[in-house]
Parts: sequence; C-alpha cells; structure tokens
Amino acid sequence: MGMNIRALDLYIERNLHPLFSASLKGVSQVLLVSNAFSGFLILIGLSLFSPSLALMALLSSFVGTWISNYVKSNKEAVLDGIFGFNSVLSGVAVTLYLTDEFKWIVALAAAAVSALFMVAVTNLYSDNKIPILTFPFVMVTWGGILATDNMKAFHVDPAFKYTRAWYLPSDEDPNFFEGLLKGIGEVFIIDSIWAGIFILLALFWAGWRFGVYAIWGTIISWSTARILGVDAELLNLGLYNFNAVLSIIAIGLVFNERKGTFALSSIFAAIMTVPITAGLFVLLQPLGLPALTMPFILSTWIFLAAWKVRAKEA
Amino acid sequence: MGMNIRALDLYIERNLHPLFSASLKGVSQVLLVSNAFSGFLILIGLSLFSPSLALMALLSSFVGTWISNYVKSNKEAVLDGIFGFNSVLSGVAVTLYLTDEFKWIVALAAAAVSALFMVAVTNLYSDNKIPILTFPFVMVTWGGILATDNMKAFHVDPAFKYTRAWYLPSDEDPNFFEGLLKGIGEVFIIDSIWAGIFILLALFWAGWRFGVYAIWGTIISWSTARILGVDAELLNLGLYNFNAVLSIIAIGLVFNERKGTFALSSIFAAIMTVPITAGLFVLLQPLGLPALTMPFILSTWIFLAAWKVRAKEA
Amino acid sequence: MGMNIRALDLYIERNLHPLFSASLKGVSQVLLVSNAFSGFLILIGLSLFSPSLALMALLSSFVGTWISNYVKSNKEAVLDGIFGFNSVLSGVAVTLYLTDEFKWIVALAAAAVSALFMVAVTNLYSDNKIPILTFPFVMVTWGGILATDNMKAFHVDPAFKYTRAWYLPSDEDPNFFEGLLKGIGEVFIIDSIWAGIFILLALFWAGWRFGVYAIWGTIISWSTARILGVDAELLNLGLYNFNAVLSIIAIGLVFNERKGTFALSSIFAAIMTVPITAGLFVLLQPLGLPALTMPFILSTWIFLAAWKVRAKEA
Repeated sequence: MGMNIRALDLYIERNLHPLFSASLKGVSQVLLVSNAFSGFLILIGLSLFSPSLALMALLSSFVGTWISNYVKSNKEAVLDGIFGFNSVLSGVAVTLYLTDEFKWIVALAAAAVSALFMVAVTNLYSDNKIPILTFPFVMVTWGGILATDNMKAFHVDPAFKYTRAWYLPSDEDPNFFEGLLKGIGEVFIIDSIWAGIFILLALFWAGWRFGVYAIWGTIISWSTARILGVDAELLNLGLYNFNAVLSIIAIGLVFNERKGTFALSSIFAAIMTVPITAGLFVLLQPLGLPALTMPFILSTWIFLAAWKVRAKEA
Repeated sequence: MGMNIRALDLYIERNLHPLFSASLKGVSQVLLVSNAFSGFLILIGLSLFSPSLALMALLSSFVGTWISNYVKSNKEAVLDGIFGFNSVLSGVAVTLYLTDEFKWIVALAAAAVSALFMVAVTNLYSDNKIPILTFPFVMVTWGGILATDNMKAFHVDPAFKYTRAWYLPSDEDPNFFEGLLKGIGEVFIIDSIWAGIFILLALFWAGWRFGVYAIWGTIISWSTARILGVDAELLNLGLYNFNAVLSIIAIGLVFNERKGTFALSSIFAAIMTVPITAGLFVLLQPLGLPALTMPFILSTWIFLAAWKVRAKEA
Repeated sequence: MGMNIRALDLYIERNLHPLFSASLKGVSQVLLVSNAFSGFLILIGLSLFSPSLALMALLSSFVGTWISNYVKSNKEAVLDGIFGFNSVLSGVAVTLYLTDEFKWIVALAAAAVSALFMVAVTNLYSDNKIPILTFPFVMVTWGGILATDNMKAFHVDPAFKYTRAWYLPSDEDPNFFEGLLKGIGEVFIIDSIWAGIFILLALFWAGWRFGVYAIWGTIISWSTARILGVDAELLNLGLYNFNAVLSIIAIGLVFNERKGTFALSSIFAAIMTVPITAGLFVLLQPLGLPALTMPFILSTWIFLAAWKVRAKEA
C-alpha cells in the first residue's frame, strides 16, 4: 500500500513537464512540503471554496516558478517549488482582496514580484542557512494593501478591512475542531472547513508526520491562546493557530532526526506564535493590515537560529 | 568636440584640490554619477532656486567627504564622492525644513552624521555587493523630523508638513514635461523646473545615456502612475517619477553591458517605484514623514539582488 | 588596597558555582561590565527600590544563563554573563509592567525568550563583530507590551502607560544630580536615586573608568538635551541620559586603548542618543511603547561600525 502510494508520486514525476510539476510542488510548499500530488489535493480544497481561486493559485505558482527559472541558476531549488509558494500566496491574496475585473493580471504581477523578491533575499542571505519562508509574500501583500489606498485603479473588498473591528469582544464559544480545520485553511487566507480538510489530507499524503505536526501545532497554540485569553471569534477562525502549524512543520524539517531538540523547540515555537500574533494585531490594526504568516516567520527564525549551533554539533 | 568636453573634466581633475573635487563629485553622486563638472551644473541649478541652498549642498558634501576621509581608509571611494551624496541630501533637507537662524549648523551636523552612517553601513554590508544608495540620508532625515517634535530648539517649516494633506483629491491636469523636470528637481526635495533642467544637463554631461535614462524612467513611471490612478497634483510635482529616474540609472550602472537584462530589470524596477511610493505615502503620512528616495532604494535593492546571480555568470 | 579589592573578586570566582557567578555577572552586564560583585551591588540597589524586583532580576539572569548554556556551545561567553543581561532586563520589565499575581512566571518566560533571542541573533551576526547589546530585550518587551492588549489574561500597570502623556509641557526645573542618579537607575526602568547610587558604585567597583564614563556620559547628554530644549520632567527622570551612559561604556570597551578615537566617538555617540531618544518618543508614543535602551543601541551600532575600519588598522 505504502509503495503503491509512492508509485503515484513517481508516475507524476515522470510524466509531468518539470516546470508544471514544480508549480504543483510550489502549491504544496506553502505548507513547507514538496509533493506534486499534495499540491493537487490542496488545489482541490481551494476549488471547493472557489474554483477561480484554485486556478489563480496554480497560475501564480507557475509564474513564480518560471520567473525564478529565468533569473536564477539554482535549478534544483526551482524544480522543488521553492520559488513558487510565495507567488501562490501573493496571487491568492490579490484575488481575494481586490474586487476589480482585471484583478487576475494584478495577481500574476504580484506573483512575479514575490518570486523576484524571494530570489533577491535568497541571494542576499544564502549564507545564513536560515530559510526565508513566506517573508516575501508578507512584504508584497502589506505593501500592496497600503499602496491601493493611493491608487484609484484598485478597489479592495471591504470585507477584508476586517482588522479594524478586531477589538470588538465576541461571545462565541471556542471550538477546537473548527479552529483546527479553519486554521489550516487560513494558511491560504480563506475561511473554509473543506479547504482545511483537503490541506490536512495533503499534509498526510506528503508524510504522515506532517499531518501529525499540524494537529500537534493546533493543540499547543489553541490551548495557549485559550489560557492567554484571546478573542474566541478569532480563535474559531483559526487565526491563532495556523502559524503554529507552519512553525512546527518548519522546525520538524530541520530537526527531524534530533527528537529531543525538535520536541522542545517545536513546543516553544508554537507557544510563541500566539503572543506574537496578538502583538502584531495591535501593531498592524491602525494600518488596516492582516498579520498573515508573519508570526510563523518570526517564531521560526528565532528558534532555528537559536538551535543552529547545537544542530551543527550534532 | 567630444574630446574638448572631456578635456574640461581632465582640467578640473588636475587643478582642483582632491577633497574639493570629491565634494563636487559628491553632489553629482546624488544622481549616481561621478563627475565634478556635473556637480557644478547641479549647484547652478540649485542656486536658481536658492543660492544659500546651493552653498549648503556644497558645504555638506565637503563635510561628508572630509569626515569619511578622516575615519575611513578606502581613499578611492572617498575621492569618488561616494561619502558625499548622503551628506548633500541631508544638509539640503535640514536647510529646507528648518526655519531657525542657526539651521546651517544643524545642516552640517546632519551632513556629518549621514556620512558616518554611510561609513558604518558600508563597513557592515561591504560583502553583499549591494550598494547602500541614499539609505543613510533617508534614515537621518526621518529621525531628525521625528526628533524635532520633542525638541523646543528646532522649528520645522509648516509648508513641509504637507504630507498630511496628501489625500485631498485635486483637479489638476497631469502634465508630462512638468512632471519630468520637476521630478528631477525633487531628487533634491525642491519644486523647481529650472533646477530640473540643469540637473538633466548635468546628467547628459556625465554621459548622454544617463540623460536618456532620466527621460526613459520618467516615461515609464509617469505612465504607470497615470494608469494606476494616482493623484494628479503629486504627479505634476514629480513625486511619482523621480524615484524611477534614480532606479534606472542605478540599474544601468550595474547592468550596462548586458542590454537584455538591463532593459527588462530597469522597466520592472521603474514600474515598481510607483506602488512602493503610493504605499509609503500611506505608511508615513500618520507620522508626517515624506517618502524621500526610499521607493528608489527598495526597488533598486530588490532588482539588483534578484539579478545578482545571473550577473555573476555573465 | 587595590589588591585586596581584587582578592574579593577572586574569592567569589573560586567559591561560587560557575552558573551562579555567571548569573551575577549577567546582572552587571546590563551595564556592560562583567563582575560578580558589581552584580551583587546592583541587586542591593534594586532591593532598596523593591526586594522582589531584585530577586526577579537575579532569577531572570539565572534562567537566561541556564538556557543559553543548554542550547549554546560558547561556554566562555555564557560564563561571562553575556546571555544573562537581556534576560535580567526582560524579567525586570515584566515584573514592573504587569499587575497580575502570576507575573513572576511570565517574567521568567520572558527571560527565557530573551535569552533564546540573544542566542539566535548571536548565531546569525557573529561575523560582524558588532555587539548585539540589549536589542533582544527591547524587541521582547515591545512585543510583549503590544501583545497584552489582545490577551485578557494579562493586566498592565496603568502607571506604565505614561508615554501617552509625554507631550504635556512641564514646569519642572532641570536638576543635574537628580538626572545623573535617576538616569543610571532608569537603565533598569526604575525611578530611584538609591538604586542609581548603588549602580554607580557597582560601575566604580568594576573599574574606576566605568564610573567616570557614567558621569561623563551624563554631562554630555544632559547638556545636549538642555540645549536642544527637551522636556525638563523627562530630563529629571534621567530618560535623556541613561542611553548616553551605556553608549560611552560600550565604546570605551572597544576603543579603550585608542584615546583619540574613544574621546571623539564617545562624545558624538553620547550627543546622538539625545535626538534619537526624542525621535523614538514620537515614533513609539502612538503605540504606547517606551524607548527603553533603543537609543543606546542605535547610537552605539553606528559609531562602532563607522570606526571599525580604523580600529582594524590600529
């Protein structure tokens, strides 16, 4: 059975055009795994929320992969989807935020800029051995949201200016499973249980431990958020746990074979995403900006860099 | 004829004191070219706006050059004016912003701090091969504007707190030539067509292609800004195109001999300065800060870093 | 006499457990000196303000030292207290800011996070030869203050939201000695002349020149602040001079044997802390954040990096 499953991966690898296979992997790289079929499962999940969004995600990944292939020499990283995932998220963000007819052009342009940004930061910091993660996506999206305020050509969906109301107390009851599944969907900035289910399946497909990481990260961050007393509505939207899911996967990829270090640092990193998320909400709210995956980036950077020396010794 | 012109450059080089020649080059380095006579032409242009401003620009360049010569060993860069241009802009900014009698002392102090900042950042990031550009000037000017609010000794010209009104819609008609010439003047934070003309002449003197870059950058960014629907009054002030002019010159200096890469990356970088400018306006407005040359810096950094690997291969 | 005093240092070094001795040194490293008995004197000073605060400072230092010892291999730096001082300040900040009963747990958690942050930044920037100073403490404290706004479990002492009122003009008369002593206490975020006296003693114990630096830094920054016209109440609280004290000690440690460079750069750096402090107040006030030791960090970084090349030549 295990072999049969991997046979499908092998079949895809052999029969798809490398840049198309890299584009599917780019979609899965949003969750830090590199698996074309997982990318396909994620696209299925997205299309249950909105078929055109799934299409834009795939096209954005292709644009990012193609451009990085054009400007960048490290073919291996390109074919692994490393230069696709920031483009996927940027394309998805534009598609969701804008209401204009021509938004698909803007989405692909944002995908291109994110890919160039990723190449630029990779060139500058390649010696540090610290992954760049979704930093380009966050910067491009924040910059884009700010810029639209001064450009009459673009119109932002008022529903996405929600950050301004984040301080209103809500009476909702916290619900762990809703938070888990919606949280996984929130990685793609969408509020959908079905998308969450398919993305979770995609993680299990890429490796059972990634699925376990996702559940484990949600349990830790969700409990932390409950104890620290965050707003229940945001908790149920998954806004306090999707960053922890990403952090645990990122740390798991680096420290996989060093179980003690992984257990300790992953728990700490998952806990840290909660106050970082709460703090970023306060910092970004006056600007009308969402926190996106920034808590995941900051928490993962600190823990990967802190454990770096010990990792070298091992 | 061409030889006669270069003979003048040679004459200046031989007969001026090296630090004074470096100071004139420092003025021209604001436009990223290194030519003493171009620096002289720029000073003529500035003096048509305000003779005392031109004097302060030259003195600031001298202070920056002298201080960096004192603390820094790389004589070649010092004599090339590399440590003068941030000082020029900082001295000019203080002279324009403050209304106090003793502002010339503050201007020279700002020039000194900018030069030290430039030396500091050069020391820290010299391995990256990414130029520091006008980053020290922007940081010192932003810091200075913020600081004056808490120091009773300084008084800022209310006319320069204009950012707060930048959202008011205006009914002005966009005018390309006004934008082109005023935009070039805006590099020195002044609103003057005559200054723009002389700076454009200075660019052509340093090399005809630099003049063409300035016009080319203005065409691209001005059109982009029109299409994206920015405010026409700001467009006519040149606030949406001077950053593109600087970006194209910077990229041209690095990729000059690789025409395909230059054409593509310069167009992209020039286009990118427009949304970056629009976004920075929104981000900085609540703080009462101008965007200055920050859009140029960010856009140039991304594109130079992104194309770095291919440049190495060539 | 001199020998007798050093005999005490030697006695402590031989009879205390290394991690406990490192924890005391961590307390003294807040002032950039490494001396266990100085750390003890500082704790006495803090306990005159609040015994429980002194206890938390020591415990925080121990947590930071222990954690960095656990994750980090550079034993020498650990035993020198290098990974304790950010934890001390973070623990102290939490103890002062929060009003909750369980705040001591939060303080120790903040101490742990600061230590990990310090290890992380040290790993990333160890090649630069620029010290990290109290940057982790500032980041953790700012992040923590922002985060508490969104977490119902924590309650911030309203007295520490004082930043919002910093613009109110005050009629107080400036008093140099009050500013000197309170300023030294403000390094630990407390308003106490007695703490200031003991910390000054601790500096003289670690080396008479450190005590002189503290007075010298206060004279320069206090005079600068007076001339630039800052608010007298903040001046008397020492908020405009404690950063200069730290800057001069930091620069003195690096340039000690090069008297000319030290004299010039220390004076400039001390002067610069004043406008940087004034600017940060404006920038941070809308967020309700204190400037903490950030002016010291920025000013010291610029001057150490600027003089780096000449230091190498010497």
